[in-house]
Amino acid sequence: MIKKLLIANRGEIAVRIIRACKELNIETVAVFSEADRDALHVQLADEALCIGPTASKDSYLNMTNIISVAKLTGSEAIHPGYGFLAENADFAELCKECNIIFVGPSPEAISKMGTKDVARETMRLAGVPIVPGSRGIIADTEEGRTLANEMGYPVIIKATAGGGGKGIRVAKDEQELIKGIQITQQEAATAFGNPGVYIEKYIEDFRHVEIQVMADSHGNVIHLGERDCTIQRRLQKLLEETPSPALDEKIREQMGDAAVKAAQAVNYTGAGTVEFIYDYRQKKFYFMEMNTRIQVEHPVTEMVTGIDLIKEQIKVASGEKLSVSQDDVVFNGWAIECRINAENPEKNFMPSPGKIQMYLPPGGLGVRVDSAVYPGYSIPPYYDSMIAKLITYGATREEAIARMKRALSEFVIEGISTTIPFHLKLLNHEQFVSGEFNTKFLELYKVME
Amino acid sequence: MIKKLLIANRGEIAVRIIRACKELNIETVAVFSEADRDALHVQLADEALCIGPTASKDSYLNMTNIISVAKLTGSEAIHPGYGFLAENADFAELCKECNIIFVGPSPEAISKMGTKDVARETMRLAGVPIVPGSRGIIADTEEGRTLANEMGYPVIIKATAGGGGKGIRVAKDEQELIKGIQITQQEAATAFGNPGVYIEKYIEDFRHVEIQVMADSHGNVIHLGERDCTIQRRLQKLLEETPSPALDEKIREQMGDAAVKAAQAVNYTGAGTVEFIYDYRQKKFYFMEMNTRIQVEHPVTEMVTGIDLIKEQIKVASGEKLSVSQDDVVFNGWAIECRINAENPEKNFMPSPGKIQMYLPPGGLGVRVDSAVYPGYSIPPYYDSMIAKLITYGATREEAIARMKRALSEFVIEGISTTIPFHLKLLNHEQFVSGEFNTKFLELYKVME
Repeated sequence: MIKKLLIANRGEIAVRIIRACKELNIETVAVFSEADRDALHVQLADEALCIGPTASKDSYLNMTNIISVAKLTGSEAIHPGYGFLAENADFAELCKECNIIFVGPSPEAISKMGTKDVARETMRLAGVPIVPGSRGIIADTEEGRTLANEMGYPVIIKATAGGGGKGIRVAKDEQELIKGIQITQQEAATAFGNPGVYIEKYIEDFRHVEIQVMADSHGNVIHLGERDCTIQRRLQKLLEETPSPALDEKIREQMGDAAVKAAQAVNYTGAGTVEFIYDYRQKKFYFMEMNTRIQVEHPVTEMVTGIDLIKEQIKVASGEKLSVSQDDVVFNGWAIECRINAENPEKNFMPSPGKIQMYLPPGGLGVRVDSAVYPGYSIPPYYDSMIAKLITYGATREEAIARMKRALSEFVIEGISTTIPFHLKLLNHEQFVSGEFNTKFLELYKVME
Repeated sequence: MIKKLLIANRGEIAVRIIRACKELNIETVAVFSEADRDALHVQLADEALCIGPTASKDSYLNMTNIISVAKLTGSEAIHPGYGFLAENADFAELCKECNIIFVGPSPEAISKMGTKDVARETMRLAGVPIVPGSRGIIADTEEGRTLANEMGYPVIIKATAGGGGKGIRVAKDEQELIKGIQITQQEAATAFGNPGVYIEKYIEDFRHVEIQVMADSHGNVIHLGERDCTIQRRLQKLLEETPSPALDEKIREQMGDAAVKAAQAVNYTGAGTVEFIYDYRQKKFYFMEMNTRIQVEHPVTEMVTGIDLIKEQIKVASGEKLSVSQDDVVFNGWAIECRINAENPEKNFMPSPGKIQMYLPPGGLGVRVDSAVYPGYSIPPYYDSMIAKLITYGATREEAIARMKRALSEFVIEGISTTIPFHLKLLNHEQFVSGEFNTKFLELYKVME
């Protein structure tokens, strides 16, 4: 088993990983940028070292500094969390070369899934349903135009190196397509260093449903059920739940099997998520992408399965077998996660960094808070605006919702604006309560008005 | 279903009840003494009214004021929590007379179980094992002496009106017995208004194991497994866990059956706890007492069964049937509760009231905090010293312990002394970890040294 682990991240996920390590009796090394000296993950870790200036590229994305700190502190492993270097195949490769365990899949698996056209083709060959579209990246605008005409509009243009809602654009007609391909290529070249784009038929009326998978280095691959992440604002998830109110047992099983196949197709190890477009009217699902890391919304899966995904990641990275088989996985009850962001939902979700004057998280039965803030903490404006994840568990969806409303109403965060009022309105919205909605929910219903 | 409920209590249990009501969409009325104007339960309830001066007898024990507030606010029901009026049959009777639902059993059931010699006799007749001892209260010192000589020393003298570790005394020989009977009678007359005492054979080497029962007004009685409360200091519980590390399946089943019989014998309704002396060497258990109310340690049962006991209490008091049958009850994993008291464990657990300067409860997977404090809150010196309950859940005892140590280590309470350092030492003690100990644990092992 790993004895000392460096966490190459910040915020709540760094705290989450430190917590798992403490429970496994693993020593922890935190790293931080100059803006994060007072961060909670720095205080909770056994050791903490500064890895550079405030800008992410100089600190949390600075591979050389992170590897140096790992070597300096005798850390045998690095957990990348999510974001930053978590899906960077070069970093996973560098860890390998430096004889450091990267808590995640192989560089090859990251690379295959990170390059979206390759991922699409790999899935097609593995028998995982994909959205109709181009075979690989398109050579030029003309190829895109021909294909789009064949499929019919609208289509979606995707940067092969994109992800997490970035580098994608919808085209409703030929004019938008041509312009869209050009802009997306330019943006992708700048943002991801890879201008390649491909196109797919755009499915407008769908739910975002994803499957958590977990694989060890002994050939065992299991799935841990789905998460429904249909409530999104500008492709950013805001609320996630499990199970999905839209899935029946048959689709759930098929989707789980497809996710396991997807993981097997790239010899996956560790925790991963296979995201699907779920056309709930046709009861058909299509591969969207695979995130080759732990996800923000992993706690809802932990609540209904009782499996600690971060511990499982670390055990698998240490060479252990999965602690459970597919048959051992039992799903109990319902879990919901609300992302609490330092944003003002009254002002178009404008970021609201600043000092937290008063802070009192909710407690009691079925309430979990994953956060990295504390009373008096100043939220720096340089990073992600998510400051806490509030997760509730109930025997039924109704109970989980009632508990979430109760917990949100007692959550005290003073000094900054947060998305708490938004979530309260959302949870009281009858369309949300009905469970029947698609990814356009927040465009259709003006929750804050 | 009850629409408006008054909580005749303070502290964490008042907050706990308010939370359950919010989730059930029930309006809440808090009551408070003059010392509790800034208490959290006052802030969280829909309405809050002062019921008298600081002294408990003038406020939280003031039946007339509480009933008046219930009538004034249109509350249909009163939840008494634990302590104060929770096991006061007169209060339950008064509620009945005033047409207010008392969330608890009938006055008759409270009375039968509250009068310990009657409870003993009722259990004997119901076939629940009792400790050898007197039949009813002893007439005089001489009767006690004769009985004790027959049974052999040590014996235990118990005030029939006592409870919760109060009004009991051990006698190792005749001299201690005679003195003990006199003192206990005097104390009981003063404290409980009833001088009656009885004697039992004193079992020295035992574990405290109790069974949670739940009964509705339709004749359904179930049990929700055991809690092991063997870790006590001067008969006050400090740490509770479920399941018990000392029970096997056969004893567990027998004890559950006995608890159900005990409840049936008094036509019990609502939540109750049947406490047993468990002679783990002989694998025999004896009825100790029944607490006719919700208990401090109820959360560990909630964690492993997934059943919200407070909601169940309220539903049953509303006339509903139990939401589960005995066969529906499934036990998953392990849960531990540590009572965090405002006491200095370095100074013989001396109370340490005062202002909480900094407060940050732990979070993350498997961690639950039930508390009524907040940053800047001043703990009044007049009431119970327990300020928070920290509950952890794990797949195994090992995981629940590791998680508890992690959670205790990140729990920040500044400005006062707490029992957190004590719990950390206890959880690291190899004898505790082994699971093999009796109620004398803290006398045998000087945990704080």
